[in-house]
Amino acid sequence: MSNNEKIKIKPGTLLYPLPAVMVTAGTIEKNNIITIAWTGIINTDPAILYISVKKSRYSHALISEAGEFVINLTTEKLARATDFAGVRSGKNFDKVKELGLTLIPGETNDTPMIAESPINLECKVMEVHEYPTHDMFIAEVVDAHISAEFVNENGSYDFGRMNLLAYNHGGYYGLDDEDMGRFGFSVMKEKTKCRKEKEERRARRQAMRRNSVKRQSEQKGGSNSKSKHKSKKALNS
Amino acid sequence: MSNNEKIKIKPGTLLYPLPAVMVTAGTIEKNNIITIAWTGIINTDPAILYISVKKSRYSHALISEAGEFVINLTTEKLARATDFAGVRSGKNFDKVKELGLTLIPGETNDTPMIAESPINLECKVMEVHEYPTHDMFIAEVVDAHISAEFVNENGSYDFGRMNLLAYNHGGYYGLDDEDMGRFGFSVMKEKTKCRKEKEERRARRQAMRRNSVKRQSEQKGGSNSKSKHKSKKALNS
Repeated sequence: MSNNEKIKIKPGTLLYPLPAVMVTAGTIEKNNIITIAWTGIINTDPAILYISVKKSRYSHALISEAGEFVINLTTEKLARATDFAGVRSGKNFDKVKELGLTLIPGETNDTPMIAESPINLECKVMEVHEYPTHDMFIAEVVDAHISAEFVNENGSYDFGRMNLLAYNHGGYYGLDDEDMGRFGFSVMKEKTKCRKEKEERRARRQAMRRNSVKRQSEQKGGSNSKSKHKSKKALNS
Repeated sequence: MSNNEKIKIKPGTLLYPLPAVMVTAGTIEKNNIITIAWTGIINTDPAILYISVKKSRYSHALISEAGEFVINLTTEKLARATDFAGVRSGKNFDKVKELGLTLIPGETNDTPMIAESPINLECKVMEVHEYPTHDMFIAEVVDAHISAEFVNENGSYDFGRMNLLAYNHGGYYGLDDEDMGRFGFSVMKEKTKCRKEKEERRARRQAMRRNSVKRQSEQKGGSNSKSKHKSKKALNS
């Protein structure tokens, strides 16, 4: 058997890994959380994304009515909640209560956000496209929030430390602790690469030190740390 | 600082982790590979997905002209190629040659597929929607192919062994070796969970044994292994 031997299979939704986000819908008083993997970025500037939701889902009505929703990124710590919110229906469960999650008000939307999620994206629905099994809600990100603990001292965001959750053909996976390279690494000169790696190691050490003293003191000293998320370029085709 | 303290940030494309797929466009004679993270599933049945591509990209013209493309999933082994195909333009590089990849013909499309990719999805463009920075090509998956080495003996697909690549805010990450649970694990009874875990361990051992003898023999014996990808339910909202 050659390593490249291919087998033709049923054309399916075999695009992985995907995010498994918890989407909040409704208001502080009447709300639901639905887990969604059928989501993605459509446009970079302004940030436009979508979620695909079955008409039969409880959140479909809530989102249609309000014309808004919030995307809450999920982490390894939230794996159980993420799964539960995808399996159980809001018709029968108060998922927020059931999962012990904390809802906090958004900036623009009436839809609340999940405090335990490291990133919250407040979205306003622009268009709805109907497809045979799912409706696609296309929305603009109108406000975004990050948990303070993931902001580096130079203002960059440390997604590496968030321990985000990936969905891979029915399984929930954590990401490796270290990246295999940053965008552009394949064409980077050896000298630049060495410098960047040194900077990253330093930033990581500083982040670890900062975390270990965070609970003891609100006061943080200055630092010259360079973030490992400095690059402005990205994989936005 | 409370653990749940939030900071308001610029609304951006902060949806992660995402797939970083290599999209092939064109023909065997004249083609290109472009790496795309702005992609996702829209509809489950039939399988409909999208890719968002800037008008200025070389592949935009190739896809528009042919009305088709192929999504090739990427792996840790393909991390360098994935990055290179996202950074360099097909106007200046023959990426396939440069990266030492193998193109093979598809079943339906004229667009070739990347042999080294574990999953190839042949897509026919249904609609194109224009947004400020990107055009969204919505397409149906008309044919799908899997590398033979990832098909279990009972016919299920072993996505865990593919070592798929995730894109997380500028970094390429591998997934953890073990999943944190399968879809539905949060509501599974303890007895069912034990049985499933036992089955998974057995399937994994058998896969490892199979791999170690694969190169010595084309002949494979029968087995009663139960796949860890048996569940028909999924996170398709």
